[in-house]
This record gives sequence, C-alpha cells and structure tokens, in this order.
Amino acid sequence: MREYAAYLSLIENRLKECASPKDPDSLYLPIRYTLEGGGKRLRPILLLAACDAAGAPAENAINQAAAIEMFHNFTLLHDDVMDRADMRRGRATVHVRFDERRAILSGDTMLTLATSLLADGCPSALLPDALALFNATAIQIYEGQQYDLDFESRDDVTVDEYLMMIRLKTSVLLGAACALGALMAGATRDIIKAFYRYGERLGLAFQLQDDLLDTYGDPIVFGKEIGGDILNDKKTWLRITAMAEDTSGVIDAETTAPSPDKIERVKAVYDRLDLAARCRSLIDRYTDEAIEALASTPISRSARDFFSELALSARTRNH
Amino acid sequence: MREYAAYLSLIENRLKECASPKDPDSLYLPIRYTLEGGGKRLRPILLLAACDAAGAPAENAINQAAAIEMFHNFTLLHDDVMDRADMRRGRATVHVRFDERRAILSGDTMLTLATSLLADGCPSALLPDALALFNATAIQIYEGQQYDLDFESRDDVTVDEYLMMIRLKTSVLLGAACALGALMAGATRDIIKAFYRYGERLGLAFQLQDDLLDTYGDPIVFGKEIGGDILNDKKTWLRITAMAEDTSGVIDAETTAPSPDKIERVKAVYDRLDLAARCRSLIDRYTDEAIEALASTPISRSARDFFSELALSARTRNH
Repeated sequence: MREYAAYLSLIENRLKECASPKDPDSLYLPIRYTLEGGGKRLRPILLLAACDAAGAPAENAINQAAAIEMFHNFTLLHDDVMDRADMRRGRATVHVRFDERRAILSGDTMLTLATSLLADGCPSALLPDALALFNATAIQIYEGQQYDLDFESRDDVTVDEYLMMIRLKTSVLLGAACALGALMAGATRDIIKAFYRYGERLGLAFQLQDDLLDTYGDPIVFGKEIGGDILNDKKTWLRITAMAEDTSGVIDAETTAPSPDKIERVKAVYDRLDLAARCRSLIDRYTDEAIEALASTPISRSARDFFSELALSARTRNH
Repeated sequence: MREYAAYLSLIENRLKECASPKDPDSLYLPIRYTLEGGGKRLRPILLLAACDAAGAPAENAINQAAAIEMFHNFTLLHDDVMDRADMRRGRATVHVRFDERRAILSGDTMLTLATSLLADGCPSALLPDALALFNATAIQIYEGQQYDLDFESRDDVTVDEYLMMIRLKTSVLLGAACALGALMAGATRDIIKAFYRYGERLGLAFQLQDDLLDTYGDPIVFGKEIGGDILNDKKTWLRITAMAEDTSGVIDAETTAPSPDKIERVKAVYDRLDLAARCRSLIDRYTDEAIEALASTPISRSARDFFSELALSARTRNH
C-alpha cells in the first residue's frame, strides 16, 4: 500500500489530463473549472487503494478512478443548479460563474466522459460488470437526490427514510468506488462485495458526521458558520429525530416564525435529547461495520490499516 | 426486411416496458411522460432495420434501439430546458409540466438508463465498440448543441460552420443508430462504416429539409405556422446563405426593427437568391450520397430498397 498522498497525486495528474482544453471552449471551460475546484478526492483514492489492496497496481484502475471523480463532480454541478446554490468549495458555482445552459450541458458532457473513462483501458472481460455497477449506482444516486428534493416539502420524514436517502445519495458511490477498485484488480465476487460494504458504511458515517459538524462543529476548524442546517430547516438526522421525540413545539415555532436565537433554541432541544452523543454512537456503529466488512478479506496488514484509519478518521474528523 | 410499421411496433413495445412505473414516482413520471410523447422513432427504426439488413434478427438489437431513442429523448428534454421551450410535440415540455429540477434530474436518469440499455443483452465481444461509438456520438451531440448556443450571439457564422454544427447536433446520431444496428448483427468494419455514412448523410438531408419547410412548407400539411425561423432570426442554412450574399440590408433591418411583413420581406430576399431551389439541390446531394454509401455493401435487394425509399422520403416529405 502507498500513502494517501501518493494516491491523491496519481488522481490529480490524471484529472489534469482530462481537463485539457478542447473545442468548443465554451463547453469544456466549465468542466475544467469544475475539476480544478479541488475537493478531497476521497472516492478515487478509495478506488485506487482498493485496487492496490486487492492485489493489482493502482495504475490499472486510474481511468476508473477518474471516472468516479468525474461522475461525482457532475452530480455536484447539476445538484447546485437544482438547489440554486451560489457557492461550492469557496468559489462561484458553474451556473453562476458561466450560465445555467452551460451548467446543464457541461454536466451532461461530464456524465458521458465519466462513462467513457470507465471503459477506457478496462479489460473487456471486466467491462460488463464494471459498467453495470457504475450505471446501477448512478441510478440510485438520482433516486436519492429526488427523495432529498421530495423530503423538502414533507413534514413526516422518518429516520429510516432519511437513512435510506443518504445511503442512495451519498453512500452507494463510496461503496461502488471501493468495489470497482477491487473489481479492476480481478478480485472475487466476495471480496468485491466486502469492499462495497466497507465504502457504503463509511459513506453513512461520513454523512452523519457532516450533519453533526454543521451543528456541533468548531466554527474555526469547520471552516463555515455553525448552524446553517438549523437556519435552513434542513432535514438532517438531528432534526428528524428531534421532530419525532420532542413535544415542546420549539422546532415548529422556530420554523414558522424564527427568532433571533433560532440556532441556540433548536440546539437546546437537541441537547435535551442528547442527540450529539446518540449521533456519535450511530457514526461509531457504521464505522465499526465498515472495518468489520473487510475482516474476512485476505488483504495485507498495511491495506487493513489503511482502510481502518480512513474509517476511524470519519468519527474523529472535525472539518 | 420487414415493413417500417413492424419496426415501429417493436420499438414502441420495448419503450413501454422501459417506462413502467418505479419509485420514486416523482423521478420516473417525467421519464414516462417524455417517452409517451411519441415522435417518429426514426433512430431506433434505422437501428433495427440496419441490424436486419446486416443479417441478424432485429430483435437482437432491440435494447440498443431503445437506448438510442432514450438518449435522443434525453437530449430533447435538456435542450428544451436550455432553450426555455414551452411546447414539444403538442404538449407542455417537462420543465413546464413538472419543474426544472425534475427536468434536469430525469434527463440525467434517462442518459444513464440509455447507457444501461445499450449494454443490456449486448454480447461482451461487441460491448467495447458499441459503448465507444455511443459515448463518442453523445460527446459530439453536446458539442453541436454548444455550437448552436454559441451561434445565437454571433453574426459571422458561415455555411460551413452551420453544416458542421448540424452534423454534430443531428446527423451523427442517425449515423450511430445505423452503425450500431450493423454492429449488433456482427457486420464487418467496412459495412458498419457504410451504414454510419448512410445515416449521417440522411441526417444532413433531414435537417436541411426541416429548415426549408419552416419557410417554404404548406402550413396545413406542415402542422405549424410557416416562418417561425424567420420571425425568431434563427440561423438556418437559408438565413446564413442570404446574409452572406444579399446586399439589400433587408434582413439586418428586419432583425433590428421588424416590420409587420417581416416574413414576406425576408422570404423575398430568399426568393431573389433562389434559395429554395438551391437548398433542395443540396438536400438531393446528401440524399444521393446516403444511398450511394450503401452501394458497396452486400445487403439484399429489399434492404437496399428500404433504405433508399427512406432517404428519398427526406426530399419529398412535407411535414
């Protein structure tokens, strides 16, 4: 196994090649802009590391890693149009920086480029399975995004529905990234499945940690204002759980007629229900399940350490 | 070879299966609505007929035919959002009937469903080529759409640039449909190429016929108002050619300050330059080239007749 930074540098170099200028520039410039926006590159790194762990050089799966990152960035781009979001990673979103038509069209192009990268250099014997996994995952992500949109106008969303939604919208892509890495290394079905489960559980832990940090993070370390989710009445695990259990009516009141102390008042409800600790214990459970998923696989000690440390960072990360 | 109507019924049945209800309905309903909107189904019929002509039952290529039609409908759906078009095939467009977020997301879903259909039932030996052709074609279509958007704000578009744009935006998909049909029948590279060229030339003829009918069609047969392109200053072959050759300044004047007789005045310029006849002769050339492309292929007499008649209908069709 290599260091996290080594996988990162591999994928950054490949993405730079993918973003080389082409005609018409009006179409390819927004794509370049999107890929240069950075991000943790978590998904392609998981894919490269899984390939490595399953016994093949990470280079064998470099195009598939680029495919997953290209796909992920396409979903963010189109989600930003749908959510009318102005900022992403500290910069104007594509539809703001350019225009909406180019945001839609360059997103479509990124989806096809992703599919193209997936097939590029993929041994024909592996292509049907790789493509089927990629397509099935993409469909689940669209379904997850649609549930997320539908939930905005519903007051009766349950915790189970919320977990189903974040699994579709976020976790399955991490699962697919890990599984594709193992698949590209020619791993058995059982090993591929184990890697999928690792990524999927990791994704749930990461998303819940995101929810938690938005309310309970340290504003300086977190890098943005605390309480954005509360201010926007965003249906997170914290809010949905509180709505189901709390009888004070504070959250309803703060939704209908927000007070200047909205964040503090809603947080007080969460505190009374001990939601931060309960959310942390759910994150711990998913993290344990992620690590446990790889227990039966015959991967090296260093590979096991790599994936365990990554999973544990989900529960300790604060940004 | 079967009749046109037999291929049409094959594809309609397969599309009905593709449009069966699924959860979340808010995502799949706009897809069903789009697929039920009808249309000539020209591309899948070309694909099925090419498969038949190249020596395999059309049924072998039914999923690939559905993939091409699904893809085509996805491009129309997203183009309508980009063009802010309200109507398509006599019904409200998806972003009007539902909303823009669902139009973007259900379009994305259709693109992935199309890729999925393409692989479904495709022999693994043919999948790499089929997918590469599909993806390369999709990229060209996005580039064509971007050129079309770019041309709106340019006054110096040449006829060659216009032909390049309609080739990308329209013709390559007809070419790819024909080529994929032959590919699914296990045809040689030369035969696949010949079918590609047939479809591509046919596409150019069809698009120019569209341009011509919008100005010179019979309003009753054409089914919509004549002169829409002139009223909207749409950069068609007629307008671009007239702008390059006419010195009267009428078109410029009618663009800056339209008169109540705009259609008649612009049409008078076209008439003076004999553009209807010249456009018809260009259509004839492309039609001849389409038919000629199949001359060297060892297809049956009835297959040759099928494709020749289809090409000739491009020059005689009036709706």
